[in-house]
Amino acid sequence: MSGGSAGPTVVLAGADEVAHEARDVLDWLDTQRAHLRFQVERVALADIDGWQFDERSGNLARPDGAFFSIEGIAVIRHDSSPNQWTQPIINQPEIGLLGLLVRRNGGVVEGLFQAKAEPGQANLVQLAPTVQATRSNFMRAHGGSATRYLSNFWPPVAGVQVDVLQSEQGSRFLRKHNRNMVVEVAGDVEAEDGYRWISLGAVWALLQQDDVVNMDARSVLSCLPVTLPHAADRGVSGTADGLGRVSGPTARSLVDPYASVHSSGEILSWLAHERQRHCLQARLCPMRDIEGWQVGTDAIEHTSGRYFRVIGTRVSISGREVAAWSQPMIEAASSGLIAFLVKEINGTLHVLVEARCEAGLAFGVEIGPTVQCRPAASVGRHADAERFLHRAIDAGEDQVLYDAVLSEEGGRFYREQNHYRIIQAQDLPDAEPLGYRWITAAQLKSLTALTGYVNIEARSLLACLTSLVSPTLLSA
Amino acid sequence: MSGGSAGPTVVLAGADEVAHEARDVLDWLDTQRAHLRFQVERVALADIDGWQFDERSGNLARPDGAFFSIEGIAVIRHDSSPNQWTQPIINQPEIGLLGLLVRRNGGVVEGLFQAKAEPGQANLVQLAPTVQATRSNFMRAHGGSATRYLSNFWPPVAGVQVDVLQSEQGSRFLRKHNRNMVVEVAGDVEAEDGYRWISLGAVWALLQQDDVVNMDARSVLSCLPVTLPHAADRGVSGTADGLGRVSGPTARSLVDPYASVHSSGEILSWLAHERQRHCLQARLCPMRDIEGWQVGTDAIEHTSGRYFRVIGTRVSISGREVAAWSQPMIEAASSGLIAFLVKEINGTLHVLVEARCEAGLAFGVEIGPTVQCRPAASVGRHADAERFLHRAIDAGEDQVLYDAVLSEEGGRFYREQNHYRIIQAQDLPDAEPLGYRWITAAQLKSLTALTGYVNIEARSLLACLTSLVSPTLLSA
Repeated sequence: MSGGSAGPTVVLAGADEVAHEARDVLDWLDTQRAHLRFQVERVALADIDGWQFDERSGNLARPDGAFFSIEGIAVIRHDSSPNQWTQPIINQPEIGLLGLLVRRNGGVVEGLFQAKAEPGQANLVQLAPTVQATRSNFMRAHGGSATRYLSNFWPPVAGVQVDVLQSEQGSRFLRKHNRNMVVEVAGDVEAEDGYRWISLGAVWALLQQDDVVNMDARSVLSCLPVTLPHAADRGVSGTADGLGRVSGPTARSLVDPYASVHSSGEILSWLAHERQRHCLQARLCPMRDIEGWQVGTDAIEHTSGRYFRVIGTRVSISGREVAAWSQPMIEAASSGLIAFLVKEINGTLHVLVEARCEAGLAFGVEIGPTVQCRPAASVGRHADAERFLHRAIDAGEDQVLYDAVLSEEGGRFYREQNHYRIIQAQDLPDAEPLGYRWITAAQLKSLTALTGYVNIEARSLLACLTSLVSPTLLSA
Repeated sequence: MSGGSAGPTVVLAGADEVAHEARDVLDWLDTQRAHLRFQVERVALADIDGWQFDERSGNLARPDGAFFSIEGIAVIRHDSSPNQWTQPIINQPEIGLLGLLVRRNGGVVEGLFQAKAEPGQANLVQLAPTVQATRSNFMRAHGGSATRYLSNFWPPVAGVQVDVLQSEQGSRFLRKHNRNMVVEVAGDVEAEDGYRWISLGAVWALLQQDDVVNMDARSVLSCLPVTLPHAADRGVSGTADGLGRVSGPTARSLVDPYASVHSSGEILSWLAHERQRHCLQARLCPMRDIEGWQVGTDAIEHTSGRYFRVIGTRVSISGREVAAWSQPMIEAASSGLIAFLVKEINGTLHVLVEARCEAGLAFGVEIGPTVQCRPAASVGRHADAERFLHRAIDAGEDQVLYDAVLSEEGGRFYREQNHYRIIQAQDLPDAEPLGYRWITAAQLKSLTALTGYVNIEARSLLACLTSLVSPTLLSA
């Protein structure tokens, strides 16, 4: 991205070293947790301090308009025929900042991660980017303390490696975007209390464990320009991270740019077509007007029990900071499965992606995983989605390249965890069903430099996929 | 885009030949006009057949929801401080199709253009892309005749050279996008009545005349991957189009990718920053709630007389087709000036672009021209905008590389014409004011492959700039 010409020097920390550091980080996270008293209580919707239902619209919001609101949305999308529905959605039009500071320490690239406590998150404390803040927060619109390390990202700075607006969950948020940044610092930046420099090798290893690397960190990591070392050159395989998982794709198979089934232009054209085919139309409406959802004492939920619930929470936290607040959160009706089916074509790893149409996406469609659904919900899936879901669930042990339970956005979602899996599916045909394409990991990676192309679930999985080959370097 | 490796064969039609063809096309357009009876009458807002003001919202729409609606929008944008306003806006959430068919005829690339009559357009008939249709139209949602040449673009086809969703006027439309396509046909496709194969050389020449090439054609042409011949190799200069305009930038100065002031990564990062800095928040609101605008008998207009008016029109057309309908249109309060200031830096032509914040843009900000304003409106411009405006107006004859009056969207805008100018401004400093960047034409061109990056005014100007060096070939 910086356009320089110096060749990268590939330095991989040894497997033992990485495993040791990863264990240290887990201990450090435990220590951080021990210093915290964190309580999340469920409260009735009427008892969310500072929030109220607007009399006219029925929207759940703060009278001062701060933070976000729960509103209704009316959606039309086209498939073979138009499909219309209404649903609640989070309206949070601000652009937040997710910034990761990185440095080269003796050739090893390290990131400055934050042990961040979030009310909705399993494990309470997970690894977050250096800065994870809403615009109001870091501009101190509502008072509050200064955002640490902000000056490394805002206003514009040198050393920018990644800088791109990315979408969040399109079925929950209306056109919400965060700015994902990676900035390389030349000088010495000290890790304050609650922050830690961690080698990217250890981060990739930790990403293979349940509930350690948070969603925002995964999003930023997915955009990181990495130089994937060639397996043949370096003898690096999927197990180089040192945690002894099953052997994954070799690094070389991720990078060969000449062996893709489709050119990048063809992928962009396919996406344009899918956007026009679905022609999603979404507009805010009063929550009072949404159909099929009921507002109860404790939750706003669909009469079928499917999808999600809007609930009330009261949060109190004491430790480094002392704070208490109330807010609505979203609770999923059931756990989700998010999976890539992958296979080698022309000697290069290809990922089967779907053009995913979601109500809250700016252009209606972004590139999503092969599988993104709640297996417990047995309706609304077309035949291909059903087939790929079963393939992802029923895969034999030797076909499972990646398998972990990861938490979603802990500030808005209540204890939401999804299964993330990457499944080798070499026997799948090269022919693609309507709405799907085989693309290479390198193509997917290059699209993360752009706004509005790859959805958050696919970005998370891309970070997981990258972790299998343990790349540790920024691009030159 | 096709990713092939065959080198382009540069074939430029001779200057005389191009001039001759261009004159022929103008005659042909006159003939088309002569066969038409076209009448556009202004009517009171209450007399727009099939349209009515919604009693509750005050929105102007059709009860059947077809076509588009005029609604209100509430906007917050940040500069040094938040700035809030409300305004009417066109809500037309469908994605239309702008498709240009091209072919190689003995090495010369030709496009199949349509002589299209539109109610709001100066000259009534201008050159339009092969297909220019809303999704409802080409899917025949409201009945109507089949869209000619549609099967060359929809469903997916071979030979795709350009395929990308692009925004339209962000101050008038709420997140409206059209799919811009260029498809190369191998076989013989006959030009039906009202259509004509025209060499791109002649099109570039015609683009230098007032009101010949319509806005949608300019948008598609701006996305066309062209191989710009090197001036030194070919002796091609800005006058190669054969119409004898002033000498422009040499072709080489448009293409050298190594001499840009900023890397492409830096440009993307700057845009991400500008999007977060302005953090535009726009939401539909009932037109009844907009402030400072009054609904009169004949128009919805701002109390100051600035900006634009929503008016009623009755259109009747007879000729090839017979039709009559009524619709609201937008009439500008005064004519606009849309200009690039350019200069050579490192021997390469750079264009001064502004990160343009507009209420209807999906991410709030896209790359816009140096100057995009209504000179007659004397308020609301910051000092730099004022300075660049005067520079664009007061430029000496020898600094004017391009100067023409071009029509905007003739289906929604009522006789809206803007001055398009490209001004050599070699003495401008390399230093960039807040919100501006020097970027090369090649960088700007490459961004037109992406959705949400370059606004319609800058795309129009990019087509004009390209016409100065008369490139005639697609990429290999």
